[in-house]
Amino acid sequence: MNPSYQALSARLSDLHAIESSLAMLQWDQEIAMPKGAARARARQMATLAALHHRELTAADVGGWIAALDGGDGLGPVEAANLREAARDHRRAVSIPESLVRAWAALTVEAHDIWVEARKNKDFEAFRPTLRRLVELAGERARAVDPGRPAYDVLIDEFEPDMAMARLDGVFADLKAALVPLIARVRARQAAGGLPNLDWLRTPVAADRQREVGESIVRALGFDFDRGRLDTSVHPFCGGAGPDDVRMTTRYTETAFLRSLSGMIHETGHALYEQGRDGSHGDQPVSRARSMGIHESQSLLWEKQVGQGEAFWRHHYPRMQAAYPFLAAVPLDTFVLGLNQVDLGNFIRVDADELTYPLHVIVRYEIERDLFGGALAVDDLPAAWRDRMVAWLGIAPPDDALGCLQDVHWSGGTFGYFPSYTLGAIYAAQFMRAAREAIDVDATLARGDVAPLLGWLRERVHQVGSRLATDDLVAAATGRPLDTAPFVAYLTAKYTRLYDL
Amino acid sequence: MNPSYQALSARLSDLHAIESSLAMLQWDQEIAMPKGAARARARQMATLAALHHRELTAADVGGWIAALDGGDGLGPVEAANLREAARDHRRAVSIPESLVRAWAALTVEAHDIWVEARKNKDFEAFRPTLRRLVELAGERARAVDPGRPAYDVLIDEFEPDMAMARLDGVFADLKAALVPLIARVRARQAAGGLPNLDWLRTPVAADRQREVGESIVRALGFDFDRGRLDTSVHPFCGGAGPDDVRMTTRYTETAFLRSLSGMIHETGHALYEQGRDGSHGDQPVSRARSMGIHESQSLLWEKQVGQGEAFWRHHYPRMQAAYPFLAAVPLDTFVLGLNQVDLGNFIRVDADELTYPLHVIVRYEIERDLFGGALAVDDLPAAWRDRMVAWLGIAPPDDALGCLQDVHWSGGTFGYFPSYTLGAIYAAQFMRAAREAIDVDATLARGDVAPLLGWLRERVHQVGSRLATDDLVAAATGRPLDTAPFVAYLTAKYTRLYDL
Repeated sequence: MNPSYQALSARLSDLHAIESSLAMLQWDQEIAMPKGAARARARQMATLAALHHRELTAADVGGWIAALDGGDGLGPVEAANLREAARDHRRAVSIPESLVRAWAALTVEAHDIWVEARKNKDFEAFRPTLRRLVELAGERARAVDPGRPAYDVLIDEFEPDMAMARLDGVFADLKAALVPLIARVRARQAAGGLPNLDWLRTPVAADRQREVGESIVRALGFDFDRGRLDTSVHPFCGGAGPDDVRMTTRYTETAFLRSLSGMIHETGHALYEQGRDGSHGDQPVSRARSMGIHESQSLLWEKQVGQGEAFWRHHYPRMQAAYPFLAAVPLDTFVLGLNQVDLGNFIRVDADELTYPLHVIVRYEIERDLFGGALAVDDLPAAWRDRMVAWLGIAPPDDALGCLQDVHWSGGTFGYFPSYTLGAIYAAQFMRAAREAIDVDATLARGDVAPLLGWLRERVHQVGSRLATDDLVAAATGRPLDTAPFVAYLTAKYTRLYDL
Repeated sequence: MNPSYQALSARLSDLHAIESSLAMLQWDQEIAMPKGAARARARQMATLAALHHRELTAADVGGWIAALDGGDGLGPVEAANLREAARDHRRAVSIPESLVRAWAALTVEAHDIWVEARKNKDFEAFRPTLRRLVELAGERARAVDPGRPAYDVLIDEFEPDMAMARLDGVFADLKAALVPLIARVRARQAAGGLPNLDWLRTPVAADRQREVGESIVRALGFDFDRGRLDTSVHPFCGGAGPDDVRMTTRYTETAFLRSLSGMIHETGHALYEQGRDGSHGDQPVSRARSMGIHESQSLLWEKQVGQGEAFWRHHYPRMQAAYPFLAAVPLDTFVLGLNQVDLGNFIRVDADELTYPLHVIVRYEIERDLFGGALAVDDLPAAWRDRMVAWLGIAPPDDALGCLQDVHWSGGTFGYFPSYTLGAIYAAQFMRAAREAIDVDATLARGDVAPLLGWLRERVHQVGSRLATDDLVAAATGRPLDTAPFVAYLTAKYTRLYDL
């Protein structure tokens, strides 16, 4: 083994230990930490983050990377690992210490200001902070790569090799297909005569929801010996690596399907994590290279599987046994309930599969125009409203239901939103390809997820960052990023559900 | 502020962040971690421990300490902080890397061998490993200070400035007083006619025990906004510092007072931690300098307060309301039950207050003689048995009930046992001094722990490592370590309880 590679790999392993310690502190903060420990915890995490930054940016790391000369003579896994490490190192060293500190201070402060502004439906209160966030995010992007548009550099952090030039086309395709499809659903809903869905709001105690949810999570293949499911205010999937995957959910008594869908969503992320290449579990090459690919796994299980009829052919009788009020609800009505399109909804996180991409595209176009100079922060609420009216036919009555709704910007997370919809597109591509190899509906209908999970393990989870995203998708499905399967899937599904 | 001190203090703060992260990982391991994560967690903790070692032993730390020249010109708190940091640094640099690794490997391996040996009551299976542990512990001690007896150096890790020369006298005093006192209790028990204590074994569900225990813990002043109480197989008090104190307990359905005493014991540790000097919360000066002082706080609350009549004057009516089977048990019988002396007990952790010191002295003398060369590992079981017979009148029927019972040696912890009994001695000294300042019994009898807790906060918890242990004890009580109050307390208490 090349001694430079060996030294680099040992350092990457140390970095992973710090990252996974931070992840456990984060988990504990949401699940167990007493409230009086918040300040001490923040200091503790800031210190570990600073140690991580120092270990990553140390001169010896640059030396090992230079000595390895692009991976000449390394095996393909090691070369990919080097590529990812070099990317992390380069990003970290390119942002000056002063900017790192200013950014950390601003994002901490901005979060509280945003919480207050959202509560008061007061964009003006957040506006100066948001402007500063956009300025500093732009500075960070220019520090990383002064030769590319700032927003491309920001996107790149979550989706390497993705860029506006490509996303514009992808999202134009989706708008062209979805806006008219949604109009047909609206007309159908207005025509009336759809099944009654009031049973969706039947109160179910949290304990019961948890019990039923856990049995579904287990049936999907989540390994409770290498993970946990807990309750938190903001559901997430985190943890300390493939052998310790921690996901959370929350329960609303009058929306029993919401926590179930949420659990299946997080299980999708968790199955990715538990399926990662354990022999490189503490190296960058084993992690997801693109957030879109990670989201594809949560969405594939939540939407394509968990809101599809085949899966419920097996599980619905069990569900009816657990919830007697479902006895009078036929399977197809239950599936309609899971997929109900609410055309009066303003909130992205509550959106159904059909309207969700438009919520994302609102944000994408606004971010793109903010960083490109075509939109001023002052004009943001109007830009938001105009797009909501044009594509979804609804105008948010205030900014809490509009441009203040998401946590992302207050934390300085610009460029992430596209990953949600890229994930939905990839999920449809993966599902179409899996269907060519496996009779997916037949296996799901008999309660057997193993063939589908095995297919994803091999082509997605185990691949991690070995391949660039396009290459991973092309190897698995025969094509790089392609909106056609997603559009076809949505059109067929909602045409059938609403009998359009 | 002196720039060397400032740099040192910042490093100490980083070290604390790593230590408290390790403490949280340890807590999580006992409370929440899925079993499949054990290997990954061990690697994670080993990495953080190595980072900690590197940060502590770095040349710059030595440079700052040298530049500060013993604390000339620093304030007293800063000078004490420097003294503690210098002590940690010196210990860490004096043990060569190879020995650190050999020790870590041996103690991990030894734990599993000990578990198996204890299960099979097979000292022979543990003997070679124990011999190696004693050898390596001796090597470590000689590396730290070749000029002192190895066992003194080992004790020093837990009790700075303590030594065999002093402990021999302390323990001789205790033996001289306790062996005859125990003989009188034995005679009294043999004479019969003591109150029936069968109610001690009344089954109580764990949930009920927890509810009652939590109300007592709260009444003792534990702040649940800055700490937690959970359930674990091995009870402990840990956490990430004064604002995040995590204690645990376990419940035995047929021994409801055992978990209660355990909770009060851990609460004593927790009150110390929550009472530490928060303005130096991440610096060595705020932590307990001696394990004996820390144990004094758990024992003061568990034994002196929680097994005394005054405390129960207030709480017993509440206890009787929670546990109806206590309606027929008078207060003095309840207090006897709390303090019952079981002269057939072989196990240290189950021992009452009267016999506990003798269990400790058995271990102290054996450790002293092992490291001093007067005892061979091969002869350990016999040495153990002989002492048990001589002082407690019982011979353990096997080594699981004898010299294999404690976890300490398998983890390489030699020299800790004396701290338990030093803690009991200090607790008696503190309590006697507190009684001179406060009418402790009257305040406890009306359910008011604040005066006693306030006294301990000021004289013990807030002092941390500002003073050497003898100075702390002398400042609080007027005398350094002194067995007389402990002997007087035990004699009076057990004379009264057993009407000797």
